[in-house]
Amino acid sequence: MNAEGDRNPRAVSLDELTELCVRRGFFYPTGKIYGGLSGFYDYGPLGVDLMRNILNDWWWFFVEKREDIYGIYGSIITHPRTWEASGHVESFIDYIVTCKRCGAEYRADHLLEDLGIKVVDYSIESLKKLIHENNIRCPLCGGELTDPRTFNLMFATALGPKKDPPFTVYLRPETAQLIFVNFKNIVFTMGATLPFGIAQYGKAFRNEISPRNFLFRLREFIQMEIEYFVNPRKLDECPYFDSIRHLKINLLTAEDQEKGTDSAKKITIGDAVQNGLIGSKWHAYWIAESLKWLWRIGLSPDNLRVREHVKTELAHYAVQTFDIEYYFPFMGWKEIEGISNRGDYDLRRHQEFSGESLHIVDGDEKVIPYVIEPSFGLERVILALLTEAYVKEEKRVYLKIKPSIAPFKAAIFPLVKRDNIDVLAREIYEELREHIRVYYDEDGSIGKRYAKADEVGVPYCITVDGQSLEDGTVTVRYRDTRQQERVHREKLLEFLSLKTRP
Amino acid sequence: MNAEGDRNPRAVSLDELTELCVRRGFFYPTGKIYGGLSGFYDYGPLGVDLMRNILNDWWWFFVEKREDIYGIYGSIITHPRTWEASGHVESFIDYIVTCKRCGAEYRADHLLEDLGIKVVDYSIESLKKLIHENNIRCPLCGGELTDPRTFNLMFATALGPKKDPPFTVYLRPETAQLIFVNFKNIVFTMGATLPFGIAQYGKAFRNEISPRNFLFRLREFIQMEIEYFVNPRKLDECPYFDSIRHLKINLLTAEDQEKGTDSAKKITIGDAVQNGLIGSKWHAYWIAESLKWLWRIGLSPDNLRVREHVKTELAHYAVQTFDIEYYFPFMGWKEIEGISNRGDYDLRRHQEFSGESLHIVDGDEKVIPYVIEPSFGLERVILALLTEAYVKEEKRVYLKIKPSIAPFKAAIFPLVKRDNIDVLAREIYEELREHIRVYYDEDGSIGKRYAKADEVGVPYCITVDGQSLEDGTVTVRYRDTRQQERVHREKLLEFLSLKTRP
Repeated sequence: MNAEGDRNPRAVSLDELTELCVRRGFFYPTGKIYGGLSGFYDYGPLGVDLMRNILNDWWWFFVEKREDIYGIYGSIITHPRTWEASGHVESFIDYIVTCKRCGAEYRADHLLEDLGIKVVDYSIESLKKLIHENNIRCPLCGGELTDPRTFNLMFATALGPKKDPPFTVYLRPETAQLIFVNFKNIVFTMGATLPFGIAQYGKAFRNEISPRNFLFRLREFIQMEIEYFVNPRKLDECPYFDSIRHLKINLLTAEDQEKGTDSAKKITIGDAVQNGLIGSKWHAYWIAESLKWLWRIGLSPDNLRVREHVKTELAHYAVQTFDIEYYFPFMGWKEIEGISNRGDYDLRRHQEFSGESLHIVDGDEKVIPYVIEPSFGLERVILALLTEAYVKEEKRVYLKIKPSIAPFKAAIFPLVKRDNIDVLAREIYEELREHIRVYYDEDGSIGKRYAKADEVGVPYCITVDGQSLEDGTVTVRYRDTRQQERVHREKLLEFLSLKTRP
Repeated sequence: MNAEGDRNPRAVSLDELTELCVRRGFFYPTGKIYGGLSGFYDYGPLGVDLMRNILNDWWWFFVEKREDIYGIYGSIITHPRTWEASGHVESFIDYIVTCKRCGAEYRADHLLEDLGIKVVDYSIESLKKLIHENNIRCPLCGGELTDPRTFNLMFATALGPKKDPPFTVYLRPETAQLIFVNFKNIVFTMGATLPFGIAQYGKAFRNEISPRNFLFRLREFIQMEIEYFVNPRKLDECPYFDSIRHLKINLLTAEDQEKGTDSAKKITIGDAVQNGLIGSKWHAYWIAESLKWLWRIGLSPDNLRVREHVKTELAHYAVQTFDIEYYFPFMGWKEIEGISNRGDYDLRRHQEFSGESLHIVDGDEKVIPYVIEPSFGLERVILALLTEAYVKEEKRVYLKIKPSIAPFKAAIFPLVKRDNIDVLAREIYEELREHIRVYYDEDGSIGKRYAKADEVGVPYCITVDGQSLEDGTVTVRYRDTRQQERVHREKLLEFLSLKTRP
């Protein structure tokens, strides 16, 4: 386990991060003027730019530059049969306990964990037993608690004007199912052949009992998901495997966890497959591609580990699941992505519930493919990126975000607001902004303007001064090193384009 | 009125467009394997690319290249007080009639209009009177109809685990209100000063009684909205006005409509303001910018007109509203964008309902700004674009989409699948796809591959042939003219980048 955050007094706290994000326009609690809604945030101006940069890079990496992945963008309000088939109507539940005295409601497993009780088996019987054995009472008023009861996490709404009976539909709790119900459309209209994937990003909704930890557990969030379909007999026929077999990962197996270990081991992807720790080459490939993307956008390999789900946490549909966890100094290792082998569960269930054949022809065979699912939570990725990027130095705080992902690529400052220096600075700004995301700032001292830019991760600050009027050069100050160099204004766009590309 | 579509036997029909879009992967009816959900479509692979290109261009035009507009991305599930303040709980209703015999339900105004009865006054009394006077009965069974009753178009859902009473929240029926409730956040965290705007795109939801016309009237759709805040005493102080005053628009005023006219007049923006036809220079400016963007992405000025709302259709919040209408050959002039002067209605109401001051300091004044709202419906813009782009020639159908907006920029074909020609073609494809959206196709005759590319608007088809092996050149075939030229493979990326940029 990476405990550096715990030992590092400079590591960011969740409060510091939240405060920065709200104060500088990354995120606002939604409906703040009405007291807010727990579990919902609006993206502010800086947040939207960050979100768009990450989504665009994800789309490029997993869709545009590949031949075998098709994009879709499905509806949020979805046909209820979808969720009967997927098992969500029956099984997408948490267990809730209520205080008999004050009426406060708690998610049973969270309540136990918050009180320091380790939950291994998340079944209703186990939770009930733990509450009784530990004599858990309401943390607010000390009242007695009810037994745990089920609570479905899907948001429901009524479609159309009919009141009796209303036609109940659901807000999708995951984007994945929209992919499965479109499987046949993609095969028929795009001529897709195995192996291939379908990708999608978009909002998902979960009526969490206890949303918490800023962006970590939201009720409305953005998923980025791929379902990659493979002939079940060809799960080890991955043509790209050689390109990733030597990649080293931090792996924590289910077996090790069942022995009480919480620390990952460094192992190559190749060895992990050979030793049977990762069930198939295709599964291993998608773990590798996911890590490559997370490294690419700026997360450090040391702060990422691959943790296998233990039996008791494995979802009803899953053959094997790995979480990619990020080490947050303020809450430890937490999932930011899941990579599951869902088998043929979903397609088989949709075939059964819809009566439509969801087979596909692969060579001489007619098969229902297995599916490997890399599933990212965008806000969790953002929380990890901001955590990683937050640097506290003695005299400043700055966000060390990769230039390609940073909301603004540059800020343009006139050293002073006179002698035509501000006129030239605005001219340079107006030329640049047509091509690259930049802003103009002439308020306060240069030091204050640098500090403001540092806090939102602007990689390059450009200052126009007296010399600029004479020789056309400006100073470019690097965010991370604070070093400066002079660049000719005619070279600025090229300079920034090269420095800020992915 | 532009009646060319009516006279042109080659104009596309809605059925042809729908068929092409579903067959070629632009849009799929959602949950099709379960019988679909009326008013919901999923974007298919071609649709997502088109959507992303349009959204990115809109964002660049209205946010990135401007200094005065801030982006946000708000929640879909929203605080209920938002919609009490905005008037939606009370007034966002349609009128519905039910057949007393068979139970069929109709939106009253649509039922009348479908039967050829012109509705001018949309009040409940007027609709009731028209139904009685015209002795309207159920079109399905001939049964008697109930009187019209109100039906609120917002989707509601219950938040959190409490069952008694549930906390009712709404899916936003428009993105606009998320901007108003964030007004104060933007002023305080971004230091915004008047005039400035806030922009947002994202999903909105309306429980339409009768969704219809493919993408035109959906229950879930994407809005692209700007709220531009101006000091109410400075509505005519628009510094950009000179740059747009000479722009000619097709204007249909409320006054002309009240006189029974349905044809627009050509007039310059400057004259329209001077003659008092458009209430202010800022309102006129946003009409002009909107048109410039719609032209930019490929809609013809002749197929666009600016129609003022007549008194009976003006929303409760609006001072003056113009619709930008597109001429669809299959359904006439229809709104694809609204540009409303909402006055200070929204901010004043949110101030009243929240108790928070929503004033802003402007020079020496403290004001509640007026707001001009350009509000685009993305799927309507897409429907207009596809309508405009659809070209039927004797031997082919092609989509004449602007290269910058087209889903794929190029397709790469080997002339034949042998003699290393396919190897070279794949090599070229693999080089290009890292940088630009292209696909590879080796199936069937070249003619068939051209036809498939034409149908989805691929502007350039690149064929690799025997000569390519010798001199490194390939043929580039232009979609619209079918002309061909040879380009060296080393120049291809540059060629395509230049030809397909906005």
